[in-house]
Amino acid sequence: MNHMIAQQAPNELTASEAARKIRAGLLTSTDLVKACLTRIEETDGQLKAWALIDPEHALAQASQMDAIRQSGRPMGSLHGLPIGLKDIIDTAGLPTERGSPVLQGRHPTADAVVVERLQEAGAIILGKTKTTEFAFVHPADTTNPHNPDCTPGGSSSGSAAAVAAFQVPLALGTQTNGSVIRPASFCGVYGFKPTRGMISREGVLQTSVSLDQIGVFARTAEDTARLVDALKGHDQRDAKSYARPRPAVLEGFQAEPPVQPLLAWFDLPFADRMTADTTAGFEELIGAMGARVERVKSPPAFAGLVETQRIIHEYEICQHLQEIFDGHWDQISDTLKPVIERGRTITKTAYDEALGTMQESDVFFTAFFKDFDAILTPSAPGEAPKLGPTTGDPIFSTLWTLAGLPCLSLPVMVGSTGLPIGVQLVGGIEEDDRLLRTARWLINILSAQAA
Amino acid sequence: MNHMIAQQAPNELTASEAARKIRAGLLTSTDLVKACLTRIEETDGQLKAWALIDPEHALAQASQMDAIRQSGRPMGSLHGLPIGLKDIIDTAGLPTERGSPVLQGRHPTADAVVVERLQEAGAIILGKTKTTEFAFVHPADTTNPHNPDCTPGGSSSGSAAAVAAFQVPLALGTQTNGSVIRPASFCGVYGFKPTRGMISREGVLQTSVSLDQIGVFARTAEDTARLVDALKGHDQRDAKSYARPRPAVLEGFQAEPPVQPLLAWFDLPFADRMTADTTAGFEELIGAMGARVERVKSPPAFAGLVETQRIIHEYEICQHLQEIFDGHWDQISDTLKPVIERGRTITKTAYDEALGTMQESDVFFTAFFKDFDAILTPSAPGEAPKLGPTTGDPIFSTLWTLAGLPCLSLPVMVGSTGLPIGVQLVGGIEEDDRLLRTARWLINILSAQAA
Repeated sequence: MNHMIAQQAPNELTASEAARKIRAGLLTSTDLVKACLTRIEETDGQLKAWALIDPEHALAQASQMDAIRQSGRPMGSLHGLPIGLKDIIDTAGLPTERGSPVLQGRHPTADAVVVERLQEAGAIILGKTKTTEFAFVHPADTTNPHNPDCTPGGSSSGSAAAVAAFQVPLALGTQTNGSVIRPASFCGVYGFKPTRGMISREGVLQTSVSLDQIGVFARTAEDTARLVDALKGHDQRDAKSYARPRPAVLEGFQAEPPVQPLLAWFDLPFADRMTADTTAGFEELIGAMGARVERVKSPPAFAGLVETQRIIHEYEICQHLQEIFDGHWDQISDTLKPVIERGRTITKTAYDEALGTMQESDVFFTAFFKDFDAILTPSAPGEAPKLGPTTGDPIFSTLWTLAGLPCLSLPVMVGSTGLPIGVQLVGGIEEDDRLLRTARWLINILSAQAA
Repeated sequence: MNHMIAQQAPNELTASEAARKIRAGLLTSTDLVKACLTRIEETDGQLKAWALIDPEHALAQASQMDAIRQSGRPMGSLHGLPIGLKDIIDTAGLPTERGSPVLQGRHPTADAVVVERLQEAGAIILGKTKTTEFAFVHPADTTNPHNPDCTPGGSSSGSAAAVAAFQVPLALGTQTNGSVIRPASFCGVYGFKPTRGMISREGVLQTSVSLDQIGVFARTAEDTARLVDALKGHDQRDAKSYARPRPAVLEGFQAEPPVQPLLAWFDLPFADRMTADTTAGFEELIGAMGARVERVKSPPAFAGLVETQRIIHEYEICQHLQEIFDGHWDQISDTLKPVIERGRTITKTAYDEALGTMQESDVFFTAFFKDFDAILTPSAPGEAPKLGPTTGDPIFSTLWTLAGLPCLSLPVMVGSTGLPIGVQLVGGIEEDDRLLRTARWLINILSAQAA
């Protein structure tokens, strides 16, 4: 035996570390992809994070990116980095089955816009990660990387689990209620859902035109920022995409706050859904932050917004997927069926009213963030629950998703059974740069306290 | 009279200067747009660079960009800068008539992708600039800003003239043969046609799927680089768009060459088309550059490539615009008609052969740029000719456009009647950053010699 210092396995590097090594010629994309493929082979029998892996396709892309570097041609911000895509994101080269037997073997004819952006950034599409059925309630068979008896959260189950298990440094998910933030919390990784309209959803399964958004998973906040910068862009084909400049998120992350940030802690109407360890953890955190956290009374309207989100989400998914639900009812899960049936009873009037309420909440939050840098709130009620009929409770994401606000889950707490609990920061609309700046400040404070 | 130092009018600022002033709060986008509108009002009666101006729309955009700056929200790389778009680039808010009476009052339903990119960068769409008929041979009524009896060049006539006349700091054009480089040369501005496939053509009139490319006009090389960085991006809807990282062109412009660049001067088979003053100017320039320019014998194949370009261009425009030509023959100009008639006689076999030759030239140039940083060549035979049945001879662009190479015209020579003559630098494919780095090095040398 010798006493050499063990070198970190390539698949354990963060995306930014791996990108720097590839740029400097200290690591090839091919070796990184191979390390990820090996790790998947070793762990995915139990984890079940992947719906589809195409090693040959991935290695061919890696070899092309290595050749580009060799020749001195331009490299992208994600040059040579493998990434997993939630299996509701269309890929022309790989099937996209949306977590439903109805769409088994479905081959999209075009890539989603986010795939174009990833290719332009030099990323390697490693494969498709498991999603709940149509990114809604019925779980995939993915397990939690910290405890195989627990859920990884959903609907972006495979993406969160794969990043947590060092199978891949980056992954994409989507969020309509809490489908990025909750699995990030349960799996102990960073999850970031940017401002509504920042990233195009063209080529991604539409479950709710009003609420669906792309989100990302990584093992550091810096990596989420880097990835979102690569993905962002205006696209008029997406009804929520906006025709204005977008924040430079990585620059935001790297910036120093001009003054000490101020966080808001809402006494939410559904605070009683927090587990005891989450409540205790946040009391401790708020206490330690002193004057940097201000307790704010929830406006009475907050209680109703949960129902507003439900009405919009269920009404729209029944509209968007009507053909599939009508044509293949026998292949729809028994978990989803009652939700569809409930959604079909929502009237157009109730739906229009809900859209009106959604707009009012936009106005409220635009004013709110003049006084605060971010909202501090749990990412989920507590640790990941046991595997069961759902992937857990999205309640601590509902309000912010409805309002289109950027949300970041930080894996900085641990629950009573040793599973991760996420701390969520929610920022002002189109201020994702400020949100990441605030996140870095908070991470630094917590690291100093831990030291 | 007082003796205050005259302040530069906002419309005379370069794009980069104006962007810096707007960012620093020293200039509003509204004031910049107003200055440009005033300048247009004063000069466009003679210049006729604009097909359509929408002052109200432009001022509304400017006011929005000013409000974004005020509120501290993210600003783009072209924040608040007005830009002119060649009138073959679709705009949902403004008619797009493509220089033909056939399409008078045509209102596109969607913006071109380059318009999305400009909005994302914070630019202001000032209006549409005049193009030759279907961006081909028949001139618009635009005049040359240096001499109203001369052509501004074409087909991107209005874009080049508007930038030269300080009506707007930036404009977009397109090039299928020499339609960016030639008008840039005749009008005395920088013109840059990037590598084939770098910028999406979706939403732009297709005259030749194999050859058409987007190009830009500005009053400095730095501004062209800034603009191309904002426009570039992968788009699978464009058959020539490539799924790889793109060069950081502005960074390239700002970089120092690692060694003294080496330029190639080809003794082109059509060198006899140069005017005496162009020939003399280049002899002087090559002499002054010493060992930094190497004279290279043209491969025999070069002579045939001009015909290759003609076959592809004419065959494809007849295919793409067949419906318009068939349905509105009486509204087609007498300049264009014989070209269409000639194009229609090209056989599929001849066309396929030409595509094969085009691929061979790609292979030749890929090898060529291992030894040279750029080709040095005129942008046009000489000064702008008098107004006439065409907008001048594109011959000095033909080969490079066919090969998809990035081309930059630098307004650094003056002809015997005082009109500008462009010096063209042509770079290796996907090495637009290296081309702009070489251009800056050349500009510095020429400035030092002039001083």
